Amino acid sequence: MKREKALDIVKKQLTKHRYEHTLGVMDTAVYLAEKYGVDRKKAELAAIFHDYAKFRDKEEMKQIILEQRLGNELLEFNSELWHAPVGAYLAEKEAGITDPEILDAVRYHTSGRAKMTSLEKVVYLADYIEPGRHFPGVEEVREMAEKDLDQALIQAIKNTVHFLLKRNQRVFPLTILTYNDLISKEAD
Amino acid sequence: MKREKALDIVKKQLTKHRYEHTLGVMDTAVYLAEKYGVDRKKAELAAIFHDYAKFRDKEEMKQIILEQRLGNELLEFNSELWHAPVGAYLAEKEAGITDPEILDAVRYHTSGRAKMTSLEKVVYLADYIEPGRHFPGVEEVREMAEKDLDQALIQAIKNTVHFLLKRNQRVFPLTILTYNDLISKEAD
Repeated sequence: MKREKALDIVKKQLTKHRYEHTLGVMDTAVYLAEKYGVDRKKAELAAIFHDYAKFRDKEEMKQIILEQRLGNELLEFNSELWHAPVGAYLAEKEAGITDPEILDAVRYHTSGRAKMTSLEKVVYLADYIEPGRHFPGVEEVREMAEKDLDQALIQAIKNTVHFLLKRNQRVFPLTILTYNDLISKEAD
Repeated sequence: MKREKALDIVKKQLTKHRYEHTLGVMDTAVYLAEKYGVDRKKAELAAIFHDYAKFRDKEEMKQIILEQRLGNELLEFNSELWHAPVGAYLAEKEAGITDPEILDAVRYHTSGRAKMTSLEKVVYLADYIEPGRHFPGVEEVREMAEKDLDQALIQAIKNTVHFLLKRNQRVFPLTILTYNDLISKEAD
């Protein structure tokens, strides 16, 4: 799918603010893809679709998670996590994205997973550091992303876990599995 | 089993320093048990045996974990986690402790688990705050332990996770499940 068509499709699903965020993620994902030898077109398309389901009705997302067996445990966690797997499902069903690598990059852009592909890492990180993001710690991750994809990802996940603990929010177990997996590789 | 006999058995398994720690955990566990309506004798015995396997040979612990199916995933994590389930196994096999509640308090004193009993919480926390413990954050948890068992436990786990992340060490998933479970109750 051409970039313009993808942007057209996604724009209708998003608020103006979130569409601008998506453009930031797209540019950052392409930048990181070129830096780390990832398919540039796949990174671009995955970034464009990463928040496709962001503004879907919660009940609709819940139904999709149950009916498509996207993992019932998701429902016990912050609904902020739902739009990623639901987005992968809808990007295929409604927008006709079929490349499983692109769909996985959408699916895991919030939680991560063990054994992430470089494409998945690029989209996860682009979402975290795109120029519109302003929160404590983001600048450090931006700098790390210039040098080492895994290090930057590890730092982003650490920041997220610290943030959740500070707010007494639950931590999605897959996020810890992602961290453990990346740390293990580092120790190799 | 009488306290003196239990202490005699355990003393042979530990260094002087670790035996003194055990006495601290015992006193603290009894104190917390009385405060929070937990069986005082069970808390005492579980505390005495909590580090029973602390100085077992790593290879022996590994064999026990494999043969007794204590959870192979343990072997992928810091061996510091092994002595708790191995200790529960050996406290039964070698020392004849049969009370499943006491054995579970030994088994889960390092990782915790979802739906911990009050006895398990008391032993976990006593191990964390006994008077011989000196590390950043312990005083805050000591103060919380005077008021709210769950809050103190949540804070202890948060400290542990922050500590592990800071050191680039893996986080045992059960620890996150324990935290998530305690936080969820809080939100009820």
